[in-house]
Amino acid sequence: MKILIVGGNGTIGKKVSQHFSEKHEVITGGRDSGDVIVDITDSKSIKAMFETIGKVDAVVCAAGEAKWAEFSSMTEEDFYIGLKSKLMGQVNLVRIGKDYINPGGSFTLSAGILADHPVALTTSAAMVGGAIHSFVKAVSLELENSIRINVVSSGLVEDAVDKYEAYFPGHNPIPMKKVVNGFVKSVQGKGNGEIIRMYDNC
Amino acid sequence: MKILIVGGNGTIGKKVSQHFSEKHEVITGGRDSGDVIVDITDSKSIKAMFETIGKVDAVVCAAGEAKWAEFSSMTEEDFYIGLKSKLMGQVNLVRIGKDYINPGGSFTLSAGILADHPVALTTSAAMVGGAIHSFVKAVSLELENSIRINVVSSGLVEDAVDKYEAYFPGHNPIPMKKVVNGFVKSVQGKGNGEIIRMYDNC
Repeated sequence: MKILIVGGNGTIGKKVSQHFSEKHEVITGGRDSGDVIVDITDSKSIKAMFETIGKVDAVVCAAGEAKWAEFSSMTEEDFYIGLKSKLMGQVNLVRIGKDYINPGGSFTLSAGILADHPVALTTSAAMVGGAIHSFVKAVSLELENSIRINVVSSGLVEDAVDKYEAYFPGHNPIPMKKVVNGFVKSVQGKGNGEIIRMYDNC
Repeated sequence: MKILIVGGNGTIGKKVSQHFSEKHEVITGGRDSGDVIVDITDSKSIKAMFETIGKVDAVVCAAGEAKWAEFSSMTEEDFYIGLKSKLMGQVNLVRIGKDYINPGGSFTLSAGILADHPVALTTSAAMVGGAIHSFVKAVSLELENSIRINVVSSGLVEDAVDKYEAYFPGHNPIPMKKVVNGFVKSVQGKGNGEIIRMYDNC
């Protein structure tokens, strides 16, 4: 398979890329590094990326950001950071990418445990995650050419524990091997419209 | 109680307003009609509304729109209709309204069954619904002064059957009395961060 992994150099994307590279052709995309440079907040950049790499069998996205802050300090504009990046960035990857994916191919997006089990400071990140969950269910009803779509939502991943542990009191870290398997299940399984949840203790 | 009902003249809002008017002071808000005119896509309009009506005990929102269309025809801008109206309109009602709500008061937002059980043409509407579900859970962790927030999500409501039936094959209409009770549960109950689902057959 020819697999595009957007955010292929991030905490999760790196492990996902390493795994798929063993048996597949992997193209990593990123804002600052990767085989192809792409800014998912910009539809033109997404279109240019697909024009460069051509048709693929699978698109995996492990990219996108949202602002973490106390709700009382969040401005309207702060919410749009997540809406433009993690939400519409991924929606646009599907909207544009569906014309560059081979029949029977798949999209795998990323959300996270916050969609179902938010913690403090995550009104924006949780909202965007919930939006992606529902979008994936809805768009799975309409994609043509047997193209599938799923979303992987993981709890606090092992490789991000040092950075995020304090924000997730009592959350059990999810081993990277399990997280990678979420993406494998989506790309190599037959599921469509699935929210692949990897949570541990909720 | 002094209750603001935004979208108080819509299909659902009308019935909710009628119910609460029996025993409470109800102020209806709407884009074209109501006791106070408000455009929830415009933060300045929301702020002006609260400045006009002063402090309230409960804010109910039964307003907001999103574009229904085939995913293959949806432009990036089409998605922003729902993001700016039904999603950020409601987020901004909370963001701004929290300073105009009495201690112990409540917000009740609206989403819908599409967040969990989308039908064709609803990639945007489903997405916005899922976003609101997760936002409500997240913001309930942070609101101060014992202010509560919940969201009511109903299946196809009885009073909208004529207009929407064809889009919801096999969905059992939800009686208006049940829908109204969802709002009553949120406003007069003690729940916080709840998604009050009124679905029938899923």
